[in-house]
Amino acid sequence: MKLKVKVLKLLAGRPVVVLHFNTAGKLSVRVDDRVLIERKTKSIVSVVDVSTGLLKENEIAVSNEVVKRLNLKDGDNVEVNIAEQPESIELIHKKLECHHLNKKEVHEIIQDIVKNALTETEIAYFVSAVYKCGMSMNEVRYLIDSIVSTGKKLKLKGKIADKHSIGGVAGNRTSPIVISICAAAGLTLPKTSSRAITSAAGTADVIETISRVDFSVKEIYKIFKKTNACLVWGGSLGLAPADDRLIQIEKLLHLDPEPQLLASILSKKIAVGSKYVLIDIPYGTSAKVSKKQALDLKEKFQNLGKDFDMNIKCVLTDGTNPVGRGIGPLLEIRDILSVLKRERKRPLDLEKKSIFLSGQLLEMTETTKKGDGEKLAEELLNSGEALRKFEEIISAQKGDINRAKNTKLSKFKKDIFAKTPGKIKSVNNKKINLIARLAGSPADKGSGIYLYKIRSDRVRKNEKILTIYSESKIRLKDAVDCYLKSKPIAYL
Amino acid sequence: MKLKVKVLKLLAGRPVVVLHFNTAGKLSVRVDDRVLIERKTKSIVSVVDVSTGLLKENEIAVSNEVVKRLNLKDGDNVEVNIAEQPESIELIHKKLECHHLNKKEVHEIIQDIVKNALTETEIAYFVSAVYKCGMSMNEVRYLIDSIVSTGKKLKLKGKIADKHSIGGVAGNRTSPIVISICAAAGLTLPKTSSRAITSAAGTADVIETISRVDFSVKEIYKIFKKTNACLVWGGSLGLAPADDRLIQIEKLLHLDPEPQLLASILSKKIAVGSKYVLIDIPYGTSAKVSKKQALDLKEKFQNLGKDFDMNIKCVLTDGTNPVGRGIGPLLEIRDILSVLKRERKRPLDLEKKSIFLSGQLLEMTETTKKGDGEKLAEELLNSGEALRKFEEIISAQKGDINRAKNTKLSKFKKDIFAKTPGKIKSVNNKKINLIARLAGSPADKGSGIYLYKIRSDRVRKNEKILTIYSESKIRLKDAVDCYLKSKPIAYL
Repeated sequence: MKLKVKVLKLLAGRPVVVLHFNTAGKLSVRVDDRVLIERKTKSIVSVVDVSTGLLKENEIAVSNEVVKRLNLKDGDNVEVNIAEQPESIELIHKKLECHHLNKKEVHEIIQDIVKNALTETEIAYFVSAVYKCGMSMNEVRYLIDSIVSTGKKLKLKGKIADKHSIGGVAGNRTSPIVISICAAAGLTLPKTSSRAITSAAGTADVIETISRVDFSVKEIYKIFKKTNACLVWGGSLGLAPADDRLIQIEKLLHLDPEPQLLASILSKKIAVGSKYVLIDIPYGTSAKVSKKQALDLKEKFQNLGKDFDMNIKCVLTDGTNPVGRGIGPLLEIRDILSVLKRERKRPLDLEKKSIFLSGQLLEMTETTKKGDGEKLAEELLNSGEALRKFEEIISAQKGDINRAKNTKLSKFKKDIFAKTPGKIKSVNNKKINLIARLAGSPADKGSGIYLYKIRSDRVRKNEKILTIYSESKIRLKDAVDCYLKSKPIAYL
Repeated sequence: MKLKVKVLKLLAGRPVVVLHFNTAGKLSVRVDDRVLIERKTKSIVSVVDVSTGLLKENEIAVSNEVVKRLNLKDGDNVEVNIAEQPESIELIHKKLECHHLNKKEVHEIIQDIVKNALTETEIAYFVSAVYKCGMSMNEVRYLIDSIVSTGKKLKLKGKIADKHSIGGVAGNRTSPIVISICAAAGLTLPKTSSRAITSAAGTADVIETISRVDFSVKEIYKIFKKTNACLVWGGSLGLAPADDRLIQIEKLLHLDPEPQLLASILSKKIAVGSKYVLIDIPYGTSAKVSKKQALDLKEKFQNLGKDFDMNIKCVLTDGTNPVGRGIGPLLEIRDILSVLKRERKRPLDLEKKSIFLSGQLLEMTETTKKGDGEKLAEELLNSGEALRKFEEIISAQKGDINRAKNTKLSKFKKDIFAKTPGKIKSVNNKKINLIARLAGSPADKGSGIYLYKIRSDRVRKNEKILTIYSESKIRLKDAVDCYLKSKPIAYL
């Protein structure tokens, strides 16, 4: 059926169209059914809302997500039909029963995710099936293949390397420092990051406080004409659109099933052409994984590396406590700059870990000989070359590092004081992340937590331990309530 | 923040509000966040869409679902705030890890479902957690308690009885016949049904072809002034709003996890005050459960019956094949009427099963003495009393049984003929249900499948086996493709 487009100027988080009640009847579709909308060579599947007043019978009102995909304007004609029932629903059902999926079946699901033939709820069933049943290594390989083949690819010159953390540790923003050091040493580092999945901020959220992170593939090539590294959000590049959608849905329940974690990280490394990949696996109580799981992940990563012709090295690091003082985008970028600028009060745990990881990456790429990596990393930090490289990257991304100090933290805050004196045994990552998220992180850039005291610090009675920042009184109350209830700080 | 209501006349399938871009910023909410909307003593949680053009900054545009709950009209003022992060998200996470939930935790989740504090996707995570991890009998009890306590109750006079099938068998529309027979024998039968979950039609979908099924509690009392039984949809009564929402989401993947099946059936029997409940558990290949599972379910139902002070009897029946000839709302009501009217070509399997179930219910309520139930049931059928009772019920529900013959079947159809001669061994319920659903059942009342041949029938070459009906060419093609691929009919 031919219908005339009415642009709603509406952001719904997913493609939505509205049909007139009578038109829906003629098409034999109801609320929540799917329609296929076609214009020229492009098409998109969308969920249907039904209205009696918003539009005429010959019209179809569309959300911005549909406008963007089909490049629509008011008055355009589109062809609208019932979308065929996607076969992948039965495949998701099969996975929920913990059956193995073959290559074709995994590909079918990933393709349907990319063309929006599956609703968010159906994808949630897939995520929880993978979460509960796991996937065989073959299924993970199919998943990686499918995610890569439904996305775009980068072709860059030089020795292409990358560093990635599996996440879960609060703060822990080593990537911008490691990338700056290794880029200063001459490596090519197309670093794409996700936004936060389980923690309070992802590297993309943090870098976004001082520069753009949403670039097209064309723009990335422009950045690489100016410098040899970037720190961008993977989502806008379209390298792995299926993975971006999966992450969106995992985030709702802070899930990150292992097969998807493996596929998510590796598909993007393949898409940007990385040959040397260092993976940081923090483990321990309140980290994402235990030591046993970390060793298991390490083996899986390294095996997959061989299959996909990448040199992968995994390092297991201490994930029992946050790294750095700030948790939340703006607070974390300030920590990073304080390390790069060699400030007196910089967070030394963040610095130490960044030097260690840089050393590893410099050695595995043979930029320096075995045993000299950390020394070189430290020199590049101390000489200011890493800072200059970071400035160069941010400037190529149309940003300015001064925004970190010029932007204000969130307007509402709550200081937390020690009730009794003592020595801090540990700070629980999961709880601290949850509190920072409740406060509004990562969406509100200036929200989050600043830790005045960390592991092994002595605390006097009534001394300030931390501050929670939030843009909203309600969110601040939620976060403080959660702090009081969950007790993230343990004393010796 | 106070905002002025703009009614969108939009059915979105769930509460949705649209905020102006700037207003969303002031409230510190983004697309997909939740807001709490309050007016007088009522409130509802809704997901947020954001727009720059649909409305002014001081306005909030609302979908019909919000209008209905808060009783709104254009220009009304409402108070809008960020909704607190529902605690039940962490509880769903806990259940996904297969931990047990206590009474308070189950109640928290159910309450959040009822007040719409959880999105469809979050509820899907809960459904799949229950699907994968199961629930202890204590958790099921808490689930029943919570569902009942968040819903309304009926208080009727007389010996209150009910009959229920766990579903999964195509056709199998015994309820209207059993209810008519037992009501003719004097029992009080407030029969509420769901719409289809896993099969092509539920009793509510079928009765809706000839009368209303969506009544308020007040209207139900009016119906019971006119007659002693009803055949209505449970959803509109609000007896178990949490269960209605759960079913909506289970349906998307045709899931029906056992704990929710138990709670769904029993909560509604408790809410209508049933004291005698007969439960039909069809088992076998292509039924919902195996014989072992059926026996297990029987025990669970009967134990729960004791806890909730109900006399529950479970009968295990043959669920290996469809019952009746029609699969789909209109086709099934025609089967039912053909049995009640004693037509020569009536489906005898449907009649036999209905007489058996009626006999059981008449005996357990001591309407007749042990061993005489089926005889009485048959007499009430043959004398026309059951038909007259059915007419009385339908007429009290503002319907007319003649609509069954006056309404047309769907306009597109495809006859399927036998390719080779043979004898039919079985007709697969799951496959037949799926094909009928693809054809548009139960939403398109006239769609579905009519079986000319059933188990044990001999078939000549090119003889018609079945016809598929659909309102849409695309759906018909989907259904026929599925028929050809899945081969629902097995020959000896």
